[in-house]
Amino acid sequence: MISLVAVHGIGEVSPGDEVADLVLQAVELEDYDVLVVTQKVVSKAEGRLVPVDPDDASARRDLILSESVRVLREREGMLITETRHGFVCANAGVDFSNVGTGTAALLPVDPDRSARRIRDAVQARTGLRVAVVVSDTFGRTWRNGLTDVAIGCAGIAAVVDLRGTLDASGRELAVTQVCVVDELAAAAELVKGKASGVPAVVIRGVERSWFRESSVRGEVVRAHGGDLFR
Amino acid sequence: MISLVAVHGIGEVSPGDEVADLVLQAVELEDYDVLVVTQKVVSKAEGRLVPVDPDDASARRDLILSESVRVLREREGMLITETRHGFVCANAGVDFSNVGTGTAALLPVDPDRSARRIRDAVQARTGLRVAVVVSDTFGRTWRNGLTDVAIGCAGIAAVVDLRGTLDASGRELAVTQVCVVDELAAAAELVKGKASGVPAVVIRGVERSWFRESSVRGEVVRAHGGDLFR
Repeated sequence: MISLVAVHGIGEVSPGDEVADLVLQAVELEDYDVLVVTQKVVSKAEGRLVPVDPDDASARRDLILSESVRVLREREGMLITETRHGFVCANAGVDFSNVGTGTAALLPVDPDRSARRIRDAVQARTGLRVAVVVSDTFGRTWRNGLTDVAIGCAGIAAVVDLRGTLDASGRELAVTQVCVVDELAAAAELVKGKASGVPAVVIRGVERSWFRESSVRGEVVRAHGGDLFR
Repeated sequence: MISLVAVHGIGEVSPGDEVADLVLQAVELEDYDVLVVTQKVVSKAEGRLVPVDPDDASARRDLILSESVRVLREREGMLITETRHGFVCANAGVDFSNVGTGTAALLPVDPDRSARRIRDAVQARTGLRVAVVVSDTFGRTWRNGLTDVAIGCAGIAAVVDLRGTLDASGRELAVTQVCVVDELAAAAELVKGKASGVPAVVIRGVERSWFRESSVRGEVVRAHGGDLFR
């Protein structure tokens, strides 16, 4: 069984806050827990906040472009760009909501490093072996609606490679590389979606063999040219 | 809290089997459970099996094309097509693995109808109000690794529309249409991934206000031309 529990009571996060400490004050972790933390909290703690007039479309656009290395599509004020991290998403992941009027939150500079920092701090304070996923909400090319995905991870496989595993008929499976960190982020969103202001979720019962060093950048981000649609 | 429990003991599924009965023999459901069932089980029960020599690349290709309305990309034997349902995925969702050598499983003709059939049968047998998601494993344009998504649903909102909700600062959120059925499918995969041969997962604790009539076809599938990349 896997269980998903919302972490309540973290409250407002400010630049310089240690996310691990905020979480540890709010919830009791166990070995092999996966802690999913939203990008917004990480960006705030890391001070990735910039002043911007949310009603100034030109300033918004400039900010998005400054976070991008490539524009893929632009329509009706919405930009699909590739960020410096290699993520393809709307508005370079710049978040103009929920950070107070007049302030935008940028993605963490290195979300895998952000995840490692939180994981290492939890380990230093508690001695526990946990994994951390930093999540954000992205759209998808062919499907309506947004889902949460992982933009950074630490201590857990981003992609579990089951290529070559035999299926029930003894026939070798062709491709089953599963992006478990995206599935962890998506699962956490089901708990966050039930209440507002839940910045972190604890997932317990995740397969222990998946706990290893990994990164979203190294395993999930497709290199430019490595996909069929860019 | 949300919990995810694997449904074990369903065994081999044959054409004509009633999926609801197989599940009810294996697990005790409760009101407001979400039952996630893999496409493979549904396709087998619905007899969506065709003989094909898995080593005959030309026959494989013809079968994929017969399930497609449009080819988006083709590279190294892998086809990205649009299925009759409007899904954009590899090989039109045709599953050449795990159905016994020499047999391929096609997607259900109408996966939303498949989900409704299971949901209605559970309700008829037990009186319980449950939701059903039929899941399959798809790739993503910009990210490595596969994740499970919903190809059909019944009794639960495919997309939860939070547009216009106020954020913590009282500022109106711009876009938060969350595809919860895809997140439910992804979450279920975390449990399936722990053991082989798990064809269904029960998710308990899902927000009750999300239980309503809905469909993947109506809410998730983007109309041709409604995306920026086709």
